[in-house]
Amino acid sequence: MSNHDLTCKHKMARQNGIVQPLLTDLYQITMAYAYWKSGKVNDVAVFDLFFRNNPFQGEFTIFAGLEECLKFLQNFHYSDSDIEYLMQTLPGNIEPEFFAYLKDLTCKDIKLSAIEEGSVVFPRVPLLRVEGPLIIAQLLETTLLTLVNFASLMATNAARYRMVAGKNVSLLEFGLRRAQGPDGGLSASKYAYIGGFDGTSNVLAGKMFNIPVKGTHAHSFVTSFSTLDDIHSVILRHAETQEPCNLLDLATEWRNRVSSVIDISPEEASDGELAALISYAIAFPTGFLALVDTYDVKRYHFQGLSSRHRQHMNGHSGYNSNCGSNDTRQLKSPINSTYGYSTVERTLRSGLLNFCAVALALNDCGYRAVGIRIDSGDLAYLSVLARETFEQIAEAFKLPWFSKLTIVASNDINEDTILSLNEQGHKIDCFGIGTHLVTCQRQPALGCVYKLVEINGQPRIKLSQDVGKVTIPGHKEAYRLFGADGHALIDLLQRSSEPAPGVGQKVLCRHPFQESKRAYVIPSKVEHLYKVYWKDGRVCIQPKPLLEVRERVQSSLRTLRQDIKRNLNPTPYKVAVSDDLYNFIHDLWLQNAPIGELS
Amino acid sequence: MSNHDLTCKHKMARQNGIVQPLLTDLYQITMAYAYWKSGKVNDVAVFDLFFRNNPFQGEFTIFAGLEECLKFLQNFHYSDSDIEYLMQTLPGNIEPEFFAYLKDLTCKDIKLSAIEEGSVVFPRVPLLRVEGPLIIAQLLETTLLTLVNFASLMATNAARYRMVAGKNVSLLEFGLRRAQGPDGGLSASKYAYIGGFDGTSNVLAGKMFNIPVKGTHAHSFVTSFSTLDDIHSVILRHAETQEPCNLLDLATEWRNRVSSVIDISPEEASDGELAALISYAIAFPTGFLALVDTYDVKRYHFQGLSSRHRQHMNGHSGYNSNCGSNDTRQLKSPINSTYGYSTVERTLRSGLLNFCAVALALNDCGYRAVGIRIDSGDLAYLSVLARETFEQIAEAFKLPWFSKLTIVASNDINEDTILSLNEQGHKIDCFGIGTHLVTCQRQPALGCVYKLVEINGQPRIKLSQDVGKVTIPGHKEAYRLFGADGHALIDLLQRSSEPAPGVGQKVLCRHPFQESKRAYVIPSKVEHLYKVYWKDGRVCIQPKPLLEVRERVQSSLRTLRQDIKRNLNPTPYKVAVSDDLYNFIHDLWLQNAPIGELS
Repeated sequence: MSNHDLTCKHKMARQNGIVQPLLTDLYQITMAYAYWKSGKVNDVAVFDLFFRNNPFQGEFTIFAGLEECLKFLQNFHYSDSDIEYLMQTLPGNIEPEFFAYLKDLTCKDIKLSAIEEGSVVFPRVPLLRVEGPLIIAQLLETTLLTLVNFASLMATNAARYRMVAGKNVSLLEFGLRRAQGPDGGLSASKYAYIGGFDGTSNVLAGKMFNIPVKGTHAHSFVTSFSTLDDIHSVILRHAETQEPCNLLDLATEWRNRVSSVIDISPEEASDGELAALISYAIAFPTGFLALVDTYDVKRYHFQGLSSRHRQHMNGHSGYNSNCGSNDTRQLKSPINSTYGYSTVERTLRSGLLNFCAVALALNDCGYRAVGIRIDSGDLAYLSVLARETFEQIAEAFKLPWFSKLTIVASNDINEDTILSLNEQGHKIDCFGIGTHLVTCQRQPALGCVYKLVEINGQPRIKLSQDVGKVTIPGHKEAYRLFGADGHALIDLLQRSSEPAPGVGQKVLCRHPFQESKRAYVIPSKVEHLYKVYWKDGRVCIQPKPLLEVRERVQSSLRTLRQDIKRNLNPTPYKVAVSDDLYNFIHDLWLQNAPIGELS
Repeated sequence: MSNHDLTCKHKMARQNGIVQPLLTDLYQITMAYAYWKSGKVNDVAVFDLFFRNNPFQGEFTIFAGLEECLKFLQNFHYSDSDIEYLMQTLPGNIEPEFFAYLKDLTCKDIKLSAIEEGSVVFPRVPLLRVEGPLIIAQLLETTLLTLVNFASLMATNAARYRMVAGKNVSLLEFGLRRAQGPDGGLSASKYAYIGGFDGTSNVLAGKMFNIPVKGTHAHSFVTSFSTLDDIHSVILRHAETQEPCNLLDLATEWRNRVSSVIDISPEEASDGELAALISYAIAFPTGFLALVDTYDVKRYHFQGLSSRHRQHMNGHSGYNSNCGSNDTRQLKSPINSTYGYSTVERTLRSGLLNFCAVALALNDCGYRAVGIRIDSGDLAYLSVLARETFEQIAEAFKLPWFSKLTIVASNDINEDTILSLNEQGHKIDCFGIGTHLVTCQRQPALGCVYKLVEINGQPRIKLSQDVGKVTIPGHKEAYRLFGADGHALIDLLQRSSEPAPGVGQKVLCRHPFQESKRAYVIPSKVEHLYKVYWKDGRVCIQPKPLLEVRERVQSSLRTLRQDIKRNLNPTPYKVAVSDDLYNFIHDLWLQNAPIGELS
């Protein structure tokens, strides 16, 4: 069975697991009955699914979740046990014919139009337009919102991380353990990948969605070894010659040689750590990436540091990603054994020395080490020190590749951490990001809503004193107008009866609610944003593979001007309505709104 | 099939869906191979699962997720396709015997001790203790963390809402559409119920976990009706006599009568709304609970308000849960049709009048209405006005029950909203809470960790400059010591070799890291916090049904002093170690930590 077959099989298993018609709010079903009972079975409705504000104080959102929505429509069916449960749960006087009606309900009469998954999208422009019988369209509300809200939020969050990290840094999602439920973790892995991450630690996500999975070892692996005696086997066969090499002997010898190059005494490094790294290298000679911040050094000699390192240490006022000031915390400890130490020195001295020793030993056996992971302390400063160390060794032992070893950083990283690390000129090649990414800590929910905009051909407007909450009525189309330089200029909503805006033609774009805000636009390219994805009971356009959706995110983001994407005070992207739609909205508004009388 | 059977069947389906051994970080599996390859197959380890800080700036946490952990242990097994996926994914030089080893791996040699699910728990006291072969214990880490972290966070969040709302108010979870993925929503429903909520809108959660489900209708139901002509059927049979009643005629007549009692003209109310409410009442005569804030009134007569209402309106400076100042937003609208209106008046005038008319018509047919839901505006003020209106009608028409109608409030409610509403003396009977509850917006992740504390009988300590991150080594027991008044005084960790503290005996309790912080405690009751839930490949203690876990939360919270539970500046609950464990920790610390040398 191919990897792809496995993926499909497991996706279906999940789909059939919990994404089903009962994954909804009860009021959808009570409303369905009230509609049914009021003779509204043949009413035809149009609902728009949209959001009102971009998340994370940004000015863009990535639309995701469409594939899951299509699978939901495809599988929409109340099982016998669903019907039985509803009969037990709804009031006793519900007419039995209603349950028979539900039993036969499918999405065959529903038409779903949507923006392409992975596109950048903006407030008020519907992401989905659902047309069809009022009852079934209403019954889809909660599940569609659930499937779109978190998917889009996560993809947007991931895309933001990608933007601040830059395209040359790898981003890995490490958040499963802190995610909101098992599926919160799976969804996070999937949509983080779509948003621009390179992989995940989540193995099931790898299997289900064919996402690259990454991971090496934890601190517990290192602490499970105490001394060099804990090594079970020291023999590794040479990659080419297959001759047995004693990795312990080689590493011990290298530790002595390296220690003189980087001015660190081998006695300062933990033997338990060396044992762990040797064991790990023997297990994964082609993938040796070691966590280097587990152990304290054994002794402290300030004189032992090279002058370059000392300079760093005295002068640095680096970013400390999680500890606040170590000094104040240290004072709380009654045991002052760590007096004078910082994470910086610990990591540098024990972990890095042991890593270099094992990496050089592996080199003797024909393997190239991958790199290190740092999970605590001042990540910018540590990465610079590690890189310098690698460069010193590369030079001393004439191994240029050593200077290019990968430096992975993890530990409570968020968008602001990365921005700060950038400012400090970090030397990190890869970030492993967990909690902040997968729970979208900065804003853990996107507020998509699902609003009735037309019924039986009659438009519906939901008025509100908060103009931002007024819905744009009727059956609409959405177009993205591009300028000559390829950048998106504006999204334009029109009534569906209007002709599409033409390339090279002057289009009047109006603010939906502010009369005086108008602009003429002459688009160099016009993109019709909606395609029909579901009609006549089947998927009309197959959703694209994950990898293509992932590429779509980046290509779609490239069409946005930089000032719209920037982290600090981004410029809002414009969403407009046609003159015709403007008048339609405001006529309807006046018809529906009361005239005040002051007396 | 009984409801319980259905529940079990669907729980299993879900379990088998995604909670499986591959729902883990890849590094667990790479470490497993490195352990296996280093001859550590027979190593025996003890891991503690604990958190370091209570969430939501509080001083307690509710432990939840144990039942799911047990199901995970029970079902732990790598399928053929899992193995196949791992063979494809791990480096090519992995020895095939390792996969054979994985294939046969189960949790039969694991022993899981845990605190009872639903208990209040505190930082540093392990919630789970996992003992057994190092490799399998390591492989459980991520999944156990995933299952405990969000469950405990949600249950804690819900318990906090319950505390601020008080025990006489109903709390409903309405968060599915904004949850973090479909299962984020299901987990939220389950653990909100455990934490003290009374029900959920999530139908699948109701079916799977046998939780009460609630819900009536949305704004779209109201807006789908335009005029009285939209009513399909106006006939409702009398509850007792079964004689047909014309609900439209009755409601229209009542609308006129009510309007004079509460000084509102019937022309001010929307006919579409009346049509919707009549249709809903005919569908659910025994469960008529109506959303009353959909429509604007038709005209504005300030003189039309009763003096009591006018006074409220001029004087109130109520809490506005979501809109900021309506006045400023209103100015943004070029159409000033809503000039002078506030949500307060709109709701009062149209929705409430129509609701009362239909409720009184239903009463003529032998049915009692349930109440109203308010989903916008100044919830405290609106609830007071609604209650006053109900009381006026109760008095005018000699229907005392009318004054007790249920008032449900929803719309972006969080802990602070409820506290503010309490201060304003709201008249709300039930809160429907969504986004803030289910995504735990105030803190969307709990930081449980899983640390190696013993291997092959040897204790392990993870040192850190941040004393809060130092782990407490070794195999330990935990006891809760109670005072004579029944309140919990302190949680005490001891080495497992020590005798349990005795009732009436003086126990020296020490701060784990601050030498001078010590106290003698003479407990009136001692609770051993751990029970063995899993051993020899099977569940030793069946997890309690949801309802009992829910009761456990409340009874456990009652043992905490009020000042520990309060919202503002709560007092930390004390967690101590025995003198023996204190010395054990600090001896080990000194052995492992370096001695500084200043030069």
